[in-house]
Amino acid sequence: MIDKHAIADEFRRIQDRICSGLEREDGKATFMEDAWQHATGGGGRTRVITGGNVIEKGGVNFSAVEGDLPAFMKDKVAAGATRFFATGVSIVIHPSSPMVPIIHMNIRYFETDAGDAWFGGGIDLTPIYVNTAQATFFHLQLKNVCDRYSPDYYARFKSWADDYFFIKHRHETRGIGGIFFDYLRPSEGMSKEMLFRFVAEVGDTFLSAYLPIVEANKTMHFSEENKRWQLLRRGRYVEFNLVYDRGTRFGLETGGRIESILMSLPEHVSWIYNYMPLAGSEEANTLAKLKKGIDWVSIHDIQ
Amino acid sequence: MIDKHAIADEFRRIQDRICSGLEREDGKATFMEDAWQHATGGGGRTRVITGGNVIEKGGVNFSAVEGDLPAFMKDKVAAGATRFFATGVSIVIHPSSPMVPIIHMNIRYFETDAGDAWFGGGIDLTPIYVNTAQATFFHLQLKNVCDRYSPDYYARFKSWADDYFFIKHRHETRGIGGIFFDYLRPSEGMSKEMLFRFVAEVGDTFLSAYLPIVEANKTMHFSEENKRWQLLRRGRYVEFNLVYDRGTRFGLETGGRIESILMSLPEHVSWIYNYMPLAGSEEANTLAKLKKGIDWVSIHDIQ
Repeated sequence: MIDKHAIADEFRRIQDRICSGLEREDGKATFMEDAWQHATGGGGRTRVITGGNVIEKGGVNFSAVEGDLPAFMKDKVAAGATRFFATGVSIVIHPSSPMVPIIHMNIRYFETDAGDAWFGGGIDLTPIYVNTAQATFFHLQLKNVCDRYSPDYYARFKSWADDYFFIKHRHETRGIGGIFFDYLRPSEGMSKEMLFRFVAEVGDTFLSAYLPIVEANKTMHFSEENKRWQLLRRGRYVEFNLVYDRGTRFGLETGGRIESILMSLPEHVSWIYNYMPLAGSEEANTLAKLKKGIDWVSIHDIQ
Repeated sequence: MIDKHAIADEFRRIQDRICSGLEREDGKATFMEDAWQHATGGGGRTRVITGGNVIEKGGVNFSAVEGDLPAFMKDKVAAGATRFFATGVSIVIHPSSPMVPIIHMNIRYFETDAGDAWFGGGIDLTPIYVNTAQATFFHLQLKNVCDRYSPDYYARFKSWADDYFFIKHRHETRGIGGIFFDYLRPSEGMSKEMLFRFVAEVGDTFLSAYLPIVEANKTMHFSEENKRWQLLRRGRYVEFNLVYDRGTRFGLETGGRIESILMSLPEHVSWIYNYMPLAGSEEANTLAKLKKGIDWVSIHDIQ
């Protein structure tokens, strides 16, 4: 029977593998690590990379903490619980080039002392310029993992990501989405071991879904206008994370380690009043694709 | 008897006076105006200034809107109301030089169709580098207005500002504060006319409290390090506005005009992981002053 220690150990190994893969791809910068302790038990390894050939700023964080169950969690868990344990890996990568998409991944496991336990997670891609073929490739990698566990996972989790990674006040999705899932509890058809394997595979898909896109785009030329658009799209990323992201808001409200939580924010960002891309521009084309419900897997050309 | 139209008219004039004063001080950039209509009644004049000699990005907005009372407002107003009217002036100025403080001001009036009515508002200053003498000067201007209406206004509203303009997750105030007040309803000692005059005077104090500081600092030299610190402090400003500011969150949640609401965000901003100023540096000295409860009016040197 898989227990919380085995899950945390595997999450730590996933963090290691992803850091190595990203360092290799970057070719210049390496991760620095801050190990920290949580006041009520456990701790984490925050790893940050900056100033690379490819990556301007990125974080690959592991944590495994425990404590008293916060009051607002009590209606989300099976009755009788007083303590929780939570472990996860969280990643946000902000490349320097506007041609290379921002990526986010999270995998997590939560259990209470009353025996309730579930997995959650997600991966989503935020291209500054949407490339349809690459969006299809990215979604196919995720669908491939999902399909090995349940025929309905991809459709459910893709649509969940569309709803989750949505900037309501802008009526825009954050990027081309991906998958998002939460409260995946063991059930008749799906044991805890199976769920754990699924979530670990999501973690291990990170590099194979992302690096080919980085490879293809990292040496592309870009203009001042491309860079300006990137800084504005990063502004949207900040808006999403500070206004809507549950993990961020949970962390801010419960006194999490602020620097680990906010490592998700890009280094350079900008806001310009009422910026509207010219009709027919690449920027306008991208904006038109930041919508829910696009079937990236079967699309050939949505223009 | 002063009515909502007279209040909105005076707020419009305050907007005009402040825009003229800021343009004169800037000497280069002028405000562009977007007039807009609100779906359920009324509208506004969003005025934005960018790329000036002094001001990198700033907004001075007027609005007067009405509609059905939102459900979450019902416990805040006298019983029986179904409609509201709200008018106000909102300002945020982000100067280009790190030597010139960011400033924010808001004055507002709210009434319901059941006869309930109140005023609210505030001014607060966010220096990138805290200058104690200027902080004292700024607070004295506000105290001066407050003292003309009630001997306890300044102390109450100064402490309310300390609590309101507080970035809880950073354990830092946003700047050196100022005054903040809300739900000021007519009472025995204070008629609606008096409250209105107080709020209008707060509006008219904006220029006299801010421009002398701009004048004194705008030609000061600054370094790369000063500029970097400014971009980081602007990051804190974004964190406050997106995570805590009631006006911003109210606007985002109720479908306000997004570009008018988010004009408060600076043009260039940055986040650096775990940035800590060197002990004894000007940056560390400023950080030490971003605390609640500093009595700026009577302080001579807090170092």
